[in-house]
Amino acid sequence: MKIVEDQKVLQRQVDDWRRQGLKIGLVPTMGFFHEGHLALMRKAASCCDKVITSLFVNPMQFGPNEDLDAYPRNFERDRSLAEQESVDVLFCPDTTQMYGENFQTRVMVEKLSKGLCAASRPGHFDGVATVVTKLFLAAKPHVAVFGQKDFQQLAIIRQMVEDLNFDVEIIGHPIVRESDGLAMSSRNKYLNEQERKIAVCLYESICKAKQMFGKMGDLLTSAEVENMVKSHIEQHPECRVDYASVVHKTTLQHVENCNENSMLILAVKVSNKVRLIDNSPLQESI
Amino acid sequence: MKIVEDQKVLQRQVDDWRRQGLKIGLVPTMGFFHEGHLALMRKAASCCDKVITSLFVNPMQFGPNEDLDAYPRNFERDRSLAEQESVDVLFCPDTTQMYGENFQTRVMVEKLSKGLCAASRPGHFDGVATVVTKLFLAAKPHVAVFGQKDFQQLAIIRQMVEDLNFDVEIIGHPIVRESDGLAMSSRNKYLNEQERKIAVCLYESICKAKQMFGKMGDLLTSAEVENMVKSHIEQHPECRVDYASVVHKTTLQHVENCNENSMLILAVKVSNKVRLIDNSPLQESI
Repeated sequence: MKIVEDQKVLQRQVDDWRRQGLKIGLVPTMGFFHEGHLALMRKAASCCDKVITSLFVNPMQFGPNEDLDAYPRNFERDRSLAEQESVDVLFCPDTTQMYGENFQTRVMVEKLSKGLCAASRPGHFDGVATVVTKLFLAAKPHVAVFGQKDFQQLAIIRQMVEDLNFDVEIIGHPIVRESDGLAMSSRNKYLNEQERKIAVCLYESICKAKQMFGKMGDLLTSAEVENMVKSHIEQHPECRVDYASVVHKTTLQHVENCNENSMLILAVKVSNKVRLIDNSPLQESI
Repeated sequence: MKIVEDQKVLQRQVDDWRRQGLKIGLVPTMGFFHEGHLALMRKAASCCDKVITSLFVNPMQFGPNEDLDAYPRNFERDRSLAEQESVDVLFCPDTTQMYGENFQTRVMVEKLSKGLCAASRPGHFDGVATVVTKLFLAAKPHVAVFGQKDFQQLAIIRQMVEDLNFDVEIIGHPIVRESDGLAMSSRNKYLNEQERKIAVCLYESICKAKQMFGKMGDLLTSAEVENMVKSHIEQHPECRVDYASVVHKTTLQHVENCNENSMLILAVKVSNKVRLIDNSPLQESI
């Protein structure tokens, strides 16, 4: 596995691969790999000849009061894990390369970047759309694999790819969960033992919502689901629901009644410090 | 010469060329070709194996009260001229392909898209940056050639290429002028005979400014240049100076004193209907 820091070096490498007719997969990450990241790398390897994993903690997607500095990092461990997954290139640009002194360009996906996570993280998705554009242009992949845990992010990237004519196939990979159902996330590291136990309430509320939909189908209103989720999660005094919303799976527009295209999507703040997100189609079998 | 309307067809063609190791040049245009456009195509042909000219009148860069519908078009003439210039592909996407129903992505180059032309054309440069991104991603060129007449546009595109990691070399081509010095523009067609004669005052004021800089050098203030330009042009009652500004050639920031990095850049409205632009380094020989 090569470690590449310079995007121009990466571009020359991928140009070479493309001239050889090889298919290139990209897995954009912020590092601190867990089983979820590794599953994305395996997915890319399963459909591509060459896999590039990018590792960049992107300042542009963190708000001024967010956890940019605290965000967990462990380069040596990440390098070793990526190597075990047969990644060909680990692309690790530094911040001064990615955002030079005079940097001033922003990519915005306007409608999808409103509401849900954007309500409490203004500017976050502009940072995501901009850095993903940069990574796509640096790595020139045929395929890029993203986790479905960041569901709004995935919807935004799909829309951006369509709108800007990116010649990149986007694959969304199902959420990888701990054995009790908690969605894997680098931010789970912030939870203490007690909070970690409680955090399964996000997944429990998703399972309950699916059961309700299984019984009631289209008769189920979104408000019923949302109220159930809020009560279930906020029975723990440590938890505050940031949002819990039933939305259409591609437009992310809120719907009044649940149907086979509905997603439950939620964000929860634990002990007013750790923000966890989760989501699921209502129809999918549990 | 092939006419290609579908961007996916174009992408497959350029992928083939790239696999063969061929160098691809793109000339983005809004059509209604004049000698200025043809010079860009020749420039691209001189340094590339394959030349793509795009022809798309981009609604996103026109304001609600601008001349989108009136913008001159003549496809058969354009096709014939491009063919004579050995263009390989004329890429002519239609508006519904470029901007689908749910289109919502915007590329903004923030600092450079303020002031000068942006003051009277709000949103114009977001439209330019967005469509150029789309054209770059559809045509995947190694090189793209733009005219220097649209100087702010060129500065914005250079910045965007740097900021977003586009692997595209940007070439700015000097302004091509009519025999009396008027910068060639598709919009010159809007001028009646009398207005056409008067319109040379933009070029005259540029020549005078260069003479002043030649004599006074760094002692010359921008205000002196700007006042001279305004008086010279507005001696014609048909002409109103939208702006005339001495700026730094890459940052486009206004400067107090002229120097070897200064550009004079101006926009003039003729008979309150035709907006003409022009520019020049102060130092360049006339």
